[in-house]
Amino acid sequence: MKKVVLLRHGESEWNKENRFTGWTDVDLTEKGVSEAYKAGELLKENGFNFEKAYTSYLKRAVKTLNCVLDRLDQDWIPVEKSWRLNEKHYGILQGLNKNETAQKYGDEQVLLWRRSYDIAPHALPEDDKRNPRFEKRYENVPDKDLPRTESLKDTIGRILPYWECIIFPNLKTTDELLVVAHGNSLRGIIKHLKNISDEDIIKLNLPTGVPYVFEFDDELNLKKDYFLGDPEEIKKQMEAVANQGKNK
Amino acid sequence: MKKVVLLRHGESEWNKENRFTGWTDVDLTEKGVSEAYKAGELLKENGFNFEKAYTSYLKRAVKTLNCVLDRLDQDWIPVEKSWRLNEKHYGILQGLNKNETAQKYGDEQVLLWRRSYDIAPHALPEDDKRNPRFEKRYENVPDKDLPRTESLKDTIGRILPYWECIIFPNLKTTDELLVVAHGNSLRGIIKHLKNISDEDIIKLNLPTGVPYVFEFDDELNLKKDYFLGDPEEIKKQMEAVANQGKNK
Repeated sequence: MKKVVLLRHGESEWNKENRFTGWTDVDLTEKGVSEAYKAGELLKENGFNFEKAYTSYLKRAVKTLNCVLDRLDQDWIPVEKSWRLNEKHYGILQGLNKNETAQKYGDEQVLLWRRSYDIAPHALPEDDKRNPRFEKRYENVPDKDLPRTESLKDTIGRILPYWECIIFPNLKTTDELLVVAHGNSLRGIIKHLKNISDEDIIKLNLPTGVPYVFEFDDELNLKKDYFLGDPEEIKKQMEAVANQGKNK
Repeated sequence: MKKVVLLRHGESEWNKENRFTGWTDVDLTEKGVSEAYKAGELLKENGFNFEKAYTSYLKRAVKTLNCVLDRLDQDWIPVEKSWRLNEKHYGILQGLNKNETAQKYGDEQVLLWRRSYDIAPHALPEDDKRNPRFEKRYENVPDKDLPRTESLKDTIGRILPYWECIIFPNLKTTDELLVVAHGNSLRGIIKHLKNISDEDIIKLNLPTGVPYVFEFDDELNLKKDYFLGDPEEIKKQMEAVANQGKNK
């Protein structure tokens, strides 16, 4: 069987502070680093040997990947980074605390912004310093492709071409690929692979640092998918992610 | 000015134990990690903004690069890894302690093996488990290109095509490139860039973790080269490297 493993980065500083992160380039916490190492150890115990890895332009994903490759003793494999694997862009919410936002706009609106399929938060103004057009790392991306905000639908719209043109075709010639990215960018890939409806994707909460394995036959048909690790522990983590946006 | 920075990885476990490492994939020591971070800080203070980085297939170089990019806040830049940037292959000496080897073969022979231009240590036997042909990471390298031992001349012979075809042409379209590699592989590039004789290259001892800057004009002529950091400190480090092979 050919395998693709999707991995959400470990806890970041803003996961911890419960702030909307999006394209803000925040670092991993110590816990996030240890989650990343643990994911690497789990992959090693399960005999994974990746031939190539993909990650986003954001350091919480890049560093999670570095930690995983360290534990796999596979620091040498080729790594390709793309802005298309970045987290969903949260527009003007980027930097705001999720509980404060819930108090201001209500649980329901925040849940829509965080978890609906096609409703995007308000866009960043053109002159807002958080606008990605000011960042050197995106200077080779056509301006029309650079988001000022995104719905999950928009996020999927920019990830899928990369999945379909760059990552997935590699499975024809390789057996094991690793993608380390973000809650919503990975959701886009999972929705596509498992043909999940616009309504159901809102309920899928990916835990941080838990490898999600997709197995394909030689014709690249998806045969099965499963998380690595203790099922009870994973269930608890998914519930914790689902509860993050609630007004507490 | 366009700039290429060459950086030798921080102290590795076998640098510390004074053993011949070559293609053995040993990790950085704690000191090595802190040397790498320090190099990153120095590059940041000096305003470097790399557009692309190159490193070898060996973790002591890959991880040094990761630490540097962390401090530069440039984790997102593209990184290309190649076996051609690996350290000189030390044949049957790989794993032996340098002082013991000096006691057995004499200072002069060891200096020749370590530092001569065209004398290679004895080759690894075909069935030796250290032979790179057994390693997955080299399975896409034609067997005739995989060394069982190397002289510095051999090392340069496999690095230069990569320098000339892959790294150097990038300067036409980019301004700052970073190469994190090894004492002897970097020596090959430096010999070529500065047109150093076969005799003189033996005397060049690169300190670990000190960025070596090469500046080029727009026609890619080398205009000047210098180390970043305190000159007195660097001189001491270079002398320490030169003394490593002596029978103590």
